[in-house]
Amino acid sequence: MLLVAFEGIDGSGKTTLAEYAAKELRAPLLSPLTSTPVGRFAREAILSKSLHPLSETLLILSAFAELETLYNLHDLIIADRHLPSFLAYQAAVNGHDVRFLKKLIRALNLRLPDLVIYCDVPLQTAFKRLRKRGRVYDIEAPKVQSRVAAVYKRILSSFKVRKVPTDTFLTKSIALAVDAIRQEREARR
Amino acid sequence: MLLVAFEGIDGSGKTTLAEYAAKELRAPLLSPLTSTPVGRFAREAILSKSLHPLSETLLILSAFAELETLYNLHDLIIADRHLPSFLAYQAAVNGHDVRFLKKLIRALNLRLPDLVIYCDVPLQTAFKRLRKRGRVYDIEAPKVQSRVAAVYKRILSSFKVRKVPTDTFLTKSIALAVDAIRQEREARR
Repeated sequence: MLLVAFEGIDGSGKTTLAEYAAKELRAPLLSPLTSTPVGRFAREAILSKSLHPLSETLLILSAFAELETLYNLHDLIIADRHLPSFLAYQAAVNGHDVRFLKKLIRALNLRLPDLVIYCDVPLQTAFKRLRKRGRVYDIEAPKVQSRVAAVYKRILSSFKVRKVPTDTFLTKSIALAVDAIRQEREARR
Repeated sequence: MLLVAFEGIDGSGKTTLAEYAAKELRAPLLSPLTSTPVGRFAREAILSKSLHPLSETLLILSAFAELETLYNLHDLIIADRHLPSFLAYQAAVNGHDVRFLKKLIRALNLRLPDLVIYCDVPLQTAFKRLRKRGRVYDIEAPKVQSRVAAVYKRILSSFKVRKVPTDTFLTKSIALAVDAIRQEREARR
């Protein structure tokens, strides 16, 4: 199974791109915090802001563990966010040390993505998009997102990454992402 | 803060004893899977038997992390089950290795109980009590509970433990448990 994660800051166009790519490649699209009941509970609990920081981390990891049963049912899976998001947000927003988070992932032996499509966009462009959509969460503020982007920069070197600019024509971004996935699939045959 | 955990197999009389002791000592009584929303979600999810084994483990640990904020609000806390139960049930029922579970607890730096009151009762007595109460869950069957008791035996050596027989007069068991807690509290002054 080839697991491809679409990653990037909020408003980077991840979800749009992941949806188009999944459709084009006829692959299932999953998202750690919406695809399972545990993920949805974790998402609601995080938004309620009432969780202990460690509890939040463990709830999200529990949601990732729930995905493990899905992986071997398909040849290709597209994920709208995956463990790189976990690392970036749990370090930048929840205040955990990246080494601690990586140690947990290793101890749990969780599946990492084989390829990361990083949706690359300037902070201000991403923020403008979010404001257009309506309500903007605190977590989506440029100050927070610049910390998220900084952690992404540090952690992406541990993954196989293809950067796709998402402040250009959408069709161009889709083509780049789909090509990258096809190449990776061919290379593994 | 002194954290005292009441432990034992299902039907050993833990809950009854913990409730009396908490009342007598005017201490709050908590239970990892019922005292917080995360704990209650974990409990329901486990009973639904639809969880990935690793997800179950992480959900329960998330519930333990939620308790961390409560600990420093009190001088004495009585817990109806705590991390020894986590170890015993996750090893005996969920099939995890005790060393793996201990490694997780250490990595997360979770608070361990200072004193364990182990409610000691023959398997058959415990099972008879459960049947008297009505519906008996699969997990409460003697075959499963004998595995739980075996793991308890292995792990209790890492804790400070007072064994209290619970197949005798209730008042006697309560007195033994309360005395053990009072002694521990005095010793720490």
